[in-house]
Amino acid sequence: MSDQHLIEKPLTSSSIFKGNFIHVYRDTVELPNGHSAEREYIKHPGAVAVLAIDNENNIIMERQFRHPVNKIVYEIPAGKIDPNEDELTCGRRELVEETGYVAQDWTLLGECLPCIGYSSERIVYFLAENLSFTAVNLDEGEFVEVIKQPLDEVFELAFEGKIEDSKSLAGLMLLYGHLRKRNSIA
Amino acid sequence: MSDQHLIEKPLTSSSIFKGNFIHVYRDTVELPNGHSAEREYIKHPGAVAVLAIDNENNIIMERQFRHPVNKIVYEIPAGKIDPNEDELTCGRRELVEETGYVAQDWTLLGECLPCIGYSSERIVYFLAENLSFTAVNLDEGEFVEVIKQPLDEVFELAFEGKIEDSKSLAGLMLLYGHLRKRNSIA
Repeated sequence: MSDQHLIEKPLTSSSIFKGNFIHVYRDTVELPNGHSAEREYIKHPGAVAVLAIDNENNIIMERQFRHPVNKIVYEIPAGKIDPNEDELTCGRRELVEETGYVAQDWTLLGECLPCIGYSSERIVYFLAENLSFTAVNLDEGEFVEVIKQPLDEVFELAFEGKIEDSKSLAGLMLLYGHLRKRNSIA
Repeated sequence: MSDQHLIEKPLTSSSIFKGNFIHVYRDTVELPNGHSAEREYIKHPGAVAVLAIDNENNIIMERQFRHPVNKIVYEIPAGKIDPNEDELTCGRRELVEETGYVAQDWTLLGECLPCIGYSSERIVYFLAENLSFTAVNLDEGEFVEVIKQPLDEVFELAFEGKIEDSKSLAGLMLLYGHLRKRNSIA
């Protein structure tokens, strides 16, 4: 079936606000019915999130204060992709900077769109295994508490609705599916 | 343990851009080390997402073109909370407007933070059951295809990394946990 009843065609695109971090565009589109409409959204460079599991089946989690939601959030390590950085390099960099862990084995788990209503952001998820600890190296102004926790406990927290960060919940769902498949094959 | 090593204290807050949809603030905060830093983010009114299941264990999904990511996205029904609207009213309204379904039974599943890095948005999830179809009533400029699909198929898509929308993945994880608990109690 054709998707012409859903697709919007781009007409114009303008940068309307550029802050130090947030860059807003206002585009016009042609709707499926031929009318035009305005779409306002953030252009985002993309991000990488890491599900890092040690050989005792612990996952490396973080607690970090997040000003936009005014609370400490329990989450997986993640960060924005630097200009010209590839996704795996970003994953390795964020994991070691924020948690101090280096992983020998990296597996692509999938990708998600965290905020389709108003951001172009795309998050790529990696599973990182065979960890060794080196040293944390946080960015200036970054304060992160690292927590090593049994993976099955964290899956339970997710199923019980006790993990609020959508990025982490989505990543845990991908990881759960991946491990279920791998274990049933093994 | 005290969380003083993580907490940022608010110092100043300024609205720096107000578009037709996106409202950007730039705040200053005092970091745990006493230095100050800038935080730029979107103030969002919050949203509600609905996992609507019929009596044959189908879930009501949607396909919708999302301009910020330039593609048709497969997702659960959801929408922004109107001024002074409570969350359940918003859930009922969005479900019937977008899909035409009215649900008799509503259960709060949990809530998530979709974009903690740069948005205050909070999404509340409801399970909606005992559905009856009335009529779709989309907003001007909204084009949505409604799909009724077996829930176990959609869980499989989620575990296989084939659902890109984080809001939907997070909601499916909450639903999976809820149903697992309910069925093991029953």
